[in-house]
Amino acid sequence: MHSLIELLVNHRSERSFTDMPISDEILNNIVEAAYRAPTSVNSQQVSIVVVQDQARREKIAKIAGGQPWIARAPVFITVLLDLRKAGTALEMLDKKQVTQETIEGIISGSTDVGIALGALMTAARAQGLGIVPIGGIRNDPDAMIELLNLPLHVFPLVGVSIGYVDQPSSKKPRLPLSTFRHNEFYQTAELPIAIASYNQTISAYWQDIGRTDGLPWGENTATYHKYNYFPKVKPTLIKQGFSLKE
Amino acid sequence: MHSLIELLVNHRSERSFTDMPISDEILNNIVEAAYRAPTSVNSQQVSIVVVQDQARREKIAKIAGGQPWIARAPVFITVLLDLRKAGTALEMLDKKQVTQETIEGIISGSTDVGIALGALMTAARAQGLGIVPIGGIRNDPDAMIELLNLPLHVFPLVGVSIGYVDQPSSKKPRLPLSTFRHNEFYQTAELPIAIASYNQTISAYWQDIGRTDGLPWGENTATYHKYNYFPKVKPTLIKQGFSLKE
Repeated sequence: MHSLIELLVNHRSERSFTDMPISDEILNNIVEAAYRAPTSVNSQQVSIVVVQDQARREKIAKIAGGQPWIARAPVFITVLLDLRKAGTALEMLDKKQVTQETIEGIISGSTDVGIALGALMTAARAQGLGIVPIGGIRNDPDAMIELLNLPLHVFPLVGVSIGYVDQPSSKKPRLPLSTFRHNEFYQTAELPIAIASYNQTISAYWQDIGRTDGLPWGENTATYHKYNYFPKVKPTLIKQGFSLKE
Repeated sequence: MHSLIELLVNHRSERSFTDMPISDEILNNIVEAAYRAPTSVNSQQVSIVVVQDQARREKIAKIAGGQPWIARAPVFITVLLDLRKAGTALEMLDKKQVTQETIEGIISGSTDVGIALGALMTAARAQGLGIVPIGGIRNDPDAMIELLNLPLHVFPLVGVSIGYVDQPSSKKPRLPLSTFRHNEFYQTAELPIAIASYNQTISAYWQDIGRTDGLPWGENTATYHKYNYFPKVKPTLIKQGFSLKE
């Protein structure tokens, strides 16, 4: 199999890092990969903030609800939905940007942020580094906005910790492929059976790796999905000028 | 430079494909790469529909506002925000999923869709194929929902055409790196100068490649960002059970 396919197929999130620094050359390659990722209608509605300062990473670890690997790994990159660039271009033409008022804008922008985040993760892993994506910065987006000094129409969507791996993690099993890949039409029939089987698979996996706090998938997902997990996101989006009106 | 970094840095969207089919083995590798991509809190809130049928690809080309490369390239993959999997798991525990009522759910899901889309594109390009991401399916999401037979809590966010390249495209310049990469703090000062300079760069690029319809970046972006480009997204999301209430 092609080595890049192997890299992608063997994705895992790491949470144990050494504090060995990342060279500028390697970091520049990672950034360049995301910089060159495609964006919807070439809007370039994504930006990043690279945080290396130790005290600032410790703050982010707290903002994200207490994630010590953010303080430990030498680099934390926040990926921003950034409609200020297009907005400024429109102002220069005496036009007013409407995208930030729309749900479509949020979807298009978040998708582009995901593409850029994927490029950051793949480029880091290709150079022998480990990564863990961090949605937890949405726990307190106001604190991130203050820390990074973000202007209107810019929102901190997601982050990623990057560093050299200390204790490698293992590859987590997934729901059966039949629940992910559909051919021509979406198939709905087998879902409860697939979930029941996966609950067993993942419980066996937790046992194998000695994680005594591991839950079956349904219960773990319920922990997050039974309520609004990051309730500050909507009010802070509105404060940042994303009105969600349309 | 590492060959994978080169692949990422040399991203380009292709719009000229041969009709040469893609082997099952290559297609399976592409799918596997996306299947193994990370998702927020292991929610596995992403699914895909692989469309190879010619008549169905022709329909999608029309739905997307008239994009003939969708009909030409042998494979079109729609990437779905799919909260039905987690929702079913919660039902099996007599719990009710709330995520689909929230903006946070849309953001988290769209980001994961972007990561999966990135994996599809990178895996395809690593195997010698060309790709073009297609947001245009959100032009008429109802038609996509009908075509793919999507149930409640599943939404067709974005797609990608994959095939062997006929006439290769070229690498489009980007806004200066200083508008993308910020260190420690977001910098706002130089944006209008960077945009003015990029308007010139991209106009020269259009001239170089003989695209007489190419616009400066500001004007091109204004075409899309001065109004709600896909106004059906919000009402169709609500119909699919994403209430956006919280």
